[in-house]
Amino acid sequence: MPHRRKRDLIIKGFSKLLKEDKLKIVAELMDNQLETIELLKSFWYADTEKQKIFDEFSENTITNFYIPYGIAPNVMVNGKTHLVPMVIEESSVVAAASSAARFWSERGGFHARVKNAVKVGQIHFQWAGDKDKFVSLFDELKQRFRKNTKTITANMEKRGGGILDFELIDMRDKLENYYQINITFETKDSMGANFINSCLEESARTLQDFVKNHPSFEEKEKEITIIMAILSNYTPDCLVKVWVECPFAELENIDPSLTGEQFARKFEMAVKIAEIDPFRATTHNKGIFNGIDAVAIATGNDFRAIEAAGHAFASRNGHYQSLSHVEIKNGRFKYWIELPLALGTVGGLTSLHPLAKHSLEMLGKPSAKQLMMIIAALGMANNFAAIRSLITKGIQQGHMKMHLMNILNHFKASEKEKEKAVTYFSNHKVSFAEVGEFIKNLRLS
Amino acid sequence: MPHRRKRDLIIKGFSKLLKEDKLKIVAELMDNQLETIELLKSFWYADTEKQKIFDEFSENTITNFYIPYGIAPNVMVNGKTHLVPMVIEESSVVAAASSAARFWSERGGFHARVKNAVKVGQIHFQWAGDKDKFVSLFDELKQRFRKNTKTITANMEKRGGGILDFELIDMRDKLENYYQINITFETKDSMGANFINSCLEESARTLQDFVKNHPSFEEKEKEITIIMAILSNYTPDCLVKVWVECPFAELENIDPSLTGEQFARKFEMAVKIAEIDPFRATTHNKGIFNGIDAVAIATGNDFRAIEAAGHAFASRNGHYQSLSHVEIKNGRFKYWIELPLALGTVGGLTSLHPLAKHSLEMLGKPSAKQLMMIIAALGMANNFAAIRSLITKGIQQGHMKMHLMNILNHFKASEKEKEKAVTYFSNHKVSFAEVGEFIKNLRLS
Repeated sequence: MPHRRKRDLIIKGFSKLLKEDKLKIVAELMDNQLETIELLKSFWYADTEKQKIFDEFSENTITNFYIPYGIAPNVMVNGKTHLVPMVIEESSVVAAASSAARFWSERGGFHARVKNAVKVGQIHFQWAGDKDKFVSLFDELKQRFRKNTKTITANMEKRGGGILDFELIDMRDKLENYYQINITFETKDSMGANFINSCLEESARTLQDFVKNHPSFEEKEKEITIIMAILSNYTPDCLVKVWVECPFAELENIDPSLTGEQFARKFEMAVKIAEIDPFRATTHNKGIFNGIDAVAIATGNDFRAIEAAGHAFASRNGHYQSLSHVEIKNGRFKYWIELPLALGTVGGLTSLHPLAKHSLEMLGKPSAKQLMMIIAALGMANNFAAIRSLITKGIQQGHMKMHLMNILNHFKASEKEKEKAVTYFSNHKVSFAEVGEFIKNLRLS
Repeated sequence: MPHRRKRDLIIKGFSKLLKEDKLKIVAELMDNQLETIELLKSFWYADTEKQKIFDEFSENTITNFYIPYGIAPNVMVNGKTHLVPMVIEESSVVAAASSAARFWSERGGFHARVKNAVKVGQIHFQWAGDKDKFVSLFDELKQRFRKNTKTITANMEKRGGGILDFELIDMRDKLENYYQINITFETKDSMGANFINSCLEESARTLQDFVKNHPSFEEKEKEITIIMAILSNYTPDCLVKVWVECPFAELENIDPSLTGEQFARKFEMAVKIAEIDPFRATTHNKGIFNGIDAVAIATGNDFRAIEAAGHAFASRNGHYQSLSHVEIKNGRFKYWIELPLALGTVGGLTSLHPLAKHSLEMLGKPSAKQLMMIIAALGMANNFAAIRSLITKGIQQGHMKMHLMNILNHFKASEKEKEKAVTYFSNHKVSFAEVGEFIKNLRLS
């Protein structure tokens, strides 16, 4: 079996091969080599020059992975209505977001506020010298930091950003001789990862030189180990809050068996469960990130950074809990979400990826802060839609109806068969087995 | 300004419009309407029938978002070597994973073990009756659950999966009259979300009927409120562990200034920092998910579910911490990662998305458990590569070199200009400003 033999070879210099040769190596693993190459090439962008841009985002690129780019209309944030682009492969996320957005657009829309947009980086180091001496020299060190990062910060300062402050943190109670210098940043409309890391690495060199050469330190104090210098994706001071509210009366008729007040109280109970139980909170927040990530990807932002910050924030009180909350007071339902979101609307892929660029234009070229509010609103829309379904008809009915097309495609159903299936399953329960059975019977008849 | 007016309209029935009409509505927001439609259409798949498949994954789809599909070669997991597909937009992630995979392939490769693959769902309800009575009837209820889910579980049972067990959890100390029934599942090679949710919703109806109609309950005990029934994405019993190990001697020469032992100890210190400090842990784990999500997307898996489970798991001990760990003993470096990964290799998009299908074939049609090990290995590869850079030369040098092409594309550099820039920046620091300056000077000269 040549198939198996190939799997055990170490390939040298793969990254240096031409794209065509990489394709060949991939195809050699497959039974249908020519078809494989044809398949992979079929996803290339027609314009070869533009395809290069996609190839150069990453490494060893052989093709493009398609994820559906859809639109959630009627997303009203602080009185302004948007068509919001969502890139997601999961059925019913865009439908759910759209439905919730429409619902709230008729009840005042989403209200949003950016509480802060400070980012943070850390220099981690070990040092065995006299701490008081270090503290007494910290202002001098700070000046040195500022001076040596000047070439990096100049452009950012022109845009109103830059380094905010430096703080020494003594962590010796946790690890031997371990300190941090925390540096805070304002990066305006850029996510700022490269800017922050460049400042940090330069400052780590400055710190090392300072300790090695400052006359105040004794010989044995000149030893310092820089462990690493890197931004933190945990940004609890880059925080956005989105909320909706309405009187009970505006929640009537969501479900025939629930009054507006009953709906509000059941909704509150569902959220409280996600506040106390990590098993529930994980899924609850997952639904929030369905919406958030979809817009983040569509606008060229890094969803791994967003997920990591959001989930770490969800665990800040000692157990993992819900990012959304409900308060019922004086006959009113108030529901909000609060989470960190470090985003960019300039730099990175925002202008390089043609669809990311389009997304931002479609949203009216928002600032990073405006985008924080829009994206958080979509997270809330998906959270609201999920809880609304869960506490009323359940999620399977809607979800499986959306998934029906996928199942029909799996059975290679024709347009006619699809039509018949949609009619039949409008009042029958959708499941993979039932749809298979239905199509089989259709073909037999 | 018609632009602004359009932004404030509520659009009714958007989802029912033809795709072409949705495109038009999007284009109306833009200054360059014809170009916008052309741009969005340029990303459609050439084969209209196949484009429909992508459109039907989601809703309100107007085009496809391209993310580069790259290959990390030389990923050895339990002695078998793979070319691993990675879908990611962030530069240097594939390069870093490839480099770490190659490094460990020469040191025995990644070792991996699936510890368990149990999934969990919950019925959340409020009930004010006699708990002891409920407990005494629980076996009868369980039989009822099994009987009523039979049509749903039949197919899964044929494949060796199904419902494992039911457990009543008293949560009345947290919320008034609040209980859960936890149901555990084995879903074999499918992620199982639809299966689990269908079982849960059916069981919620069974529970309601049981309490309403069982003769043992008094009239006032017949009241039960089902809050919701839904799977949990938190899967601490669906766990995979990946590890590498080697003697210090095999870590020599990674950095000219560090012996093998010094490298091992510095690496250990970097991991320990991520164990104690959530600010560092967030970024540390973010890097792990760079690798994990890239393979998850390439194989048609749901990265939001994976992220939520992984980060919730990272916070299970009361503070958010590193998912990877190091032990140094008897002159050996041992480094491992352990995290929950609920994956599917059948169902969902795995066979519907042509590239997800290709990815799984390229990986040798792995079982869900095999894929858990491969994906976790990629998470580890990216974690190793990140820490290795951080504790030696820093990440900016490598990262900016990878990002250089993006910056050059931003300035619309020609092939000739790119060549010159690559040569120049092979020994100069890459920054957005420096590259801009270089290109400007090139064009002036």
